[in-house]
Amino acid sequence: MTQPSRMSREEFDALVEAELPIAARLGFRLDAFEHGHVVARAPYAVDFLRPGGTIAGPVLMALADYAMYAVTLSMAGRVALAVTTNLNINFLRRPEPRDVLAEGRILKLGKRLAVSEGEAEAVAHVTGTYSLPPRG
Amino acid sequence: MTQPSRMSREEFDALVEAELPIAARLGFRLDAFEHGHVVARAPYAVDFLRPGGTIAGPVLMALADYAMYAVTLSMAGRVALAVTTNLNINFLRRPEPRDVLAEGRILKLGKRLAVSEGEAEAVAHVTGTYSLPPRG
Amino acid sequence: MTQPSRMSREEFDALVEAELPIAARLGFRLDAFEHGHVVARAPYAVDFLRPGGTIAGPVLMALADYAMYAVTLSMAGRVALAVTTNLNINFLRRPEPRDVLAEGRILKLGKRLAVSEGEAEAVAHVTGTYSLPPRG
Amino acid sequence: MTQPSRMSREEFDALVEAELPIAARLGFRLDAFEHGHVVARAPYAVDFLRPGGTIAGPVLMALADYAMYAVTLSMAGRVALAVTTNLNINFLRRPEPRDVLAEGRILKLGKRLAVSEGEAEAVAHVTGTYSLPPRG
Repeated sequence: MTQPSRMSREEFDALVEAELPIAARLGFRLDAFEHGHVVARAPYAVDFLRPGGTIAGPVLMALADYAMYAVTLSMAGRVALAVTTNLNINFLRRPEPRDVLAEGRILKLGKRLAVSEGEAEAVAHVTGTYSLPPRG
Repeated sequence: MTQPSRMSREEFDALVEAELPIAARLGFRLDAFEHGHVVARAPYAVDFLRPGGTIAGPVLMALADYAMYAVTLSMAGRVALAVTTNLNINFLRRPEPRDVLAEGRILKLGKRLAVSEGEAEAVAHVTGTYSLPPRG
Repeated sequence: MTQPSRMSREEFDALVEAELPIAARLGFRLDAFEHGHVVARAPYAVDFLRPGGTIAGPVLMALADYAMYAVTLSMAGRVALAVTTNLNINFLRRPEPRDVLAEGRILKLGKRLAVSEGEAEAVAHVTGTYSLPPRG
Repeated sequence: MTQPSRMSREEFDALVEAELPIAARLGFRLDAFEHGHVVARAPYAVDFLRPGGTIAGPVLMALADYAMYAVTLSMAGRVALAVTTNLNINFLRRPEPRDVLAEGRILKLGKRLAVSEGEAEAVAHVTGTYSLPPRG
């Protein structure tokens, strides 16, 4: 899609800093932020490990939520009060001890709900639904 | 249920310390740890907040995963390699800025899969499936 | 709960007849229909079987959707346009070749979304979200 | 993928006839059946309708389960006892009153679990997990 994102990356970063301190503190950042498509990165941290040298599940869930939130706002614009209503994650393979990348894309953008999909490099597949506030 | 848990709380705490540093670092702990029933607590931390003064979704997801992992091991015993295969969460209400309690209970304990349910004080309802390794 | 259902069983049956011919054709009916609590029954039919003599998954999914739709309307009243937005089902045990009963209860009734839970006698656990139309 | 399916379409059809009479009775059939990729069709039937002229949710759930079962067996071979353990569906748009096509593809084929994804022409997105019996 060539349409521009409905908010800038700087606006999104500022929103996350304010809205999702957990994401900021885990070091998540965006490698790509386009209208309807984002790539999010969890830079490797030794704290993310679990024995066997794989990345813990909650890190993947938080990364997926971050990526799907980003892609929702890339199309819906700055709706600070968008909240997750449902998230479903299937863990597919054990993630290697390195940066994890997650792609987010929109399955449906409605007036009241946005449904998005995330994939973390074949280690997890996620769908999420975000409730959008009424437009003013 | 009057049957004793198949591992002690001390064993579980040690496992989490080693297995799930994320849970330990977020300060999660167990208020109750019985055979087939656990209560997990996320002590309030200002980092958990999102604007509006509610607790961020990833914190609830991580707490639910922790509670369901605990209740699975309370019945299956020490199977360090139990891994989450699916987690589904419905966010119901915005959590107040205070400790969050989550209850975990077992829906089914099979030979290969355990399905558990978590409820965080009417703010979220979660189901999870854990794959159990073959018994030696 | 002693509060009366916001629609009568007759109204619900008529709605299903018109709205969900699939449910009617599969023979589903309600054993209980109260405000916030329903019991739905799938009378045994040989067509429901799969080898091994258990009931096929799609029958359980359809029964759960029917029960959760009923319990949503028991509290929200007649909102014909309530539509399922998400449904998650965990299959727990193989159902015996006989009538299946499913209980439905409400986890949250919001202005725009209703989240409900269904349990089919320890053979399946289901959560569903229904989008509610704006009130006129 | 150019690898041949691990069972023929005729074998699959015979299995469904025996295993999933519901699918057969609803008229479901396969338009494509390849190793790791299937296209399933629900031929339009007036019984599938709900008012507003859209297709009822349980029909889509049953079609998704059928497509994901097919794609699982296309790669796992004839494992009659493969059973669904989890299914999650997001309803995206109201389906038009005509044939519905669903694509199935495999997200992960493990020794014990297979995770698949289904999409019904932008009207629903589904993930499912199937438990595979031990190989003899």
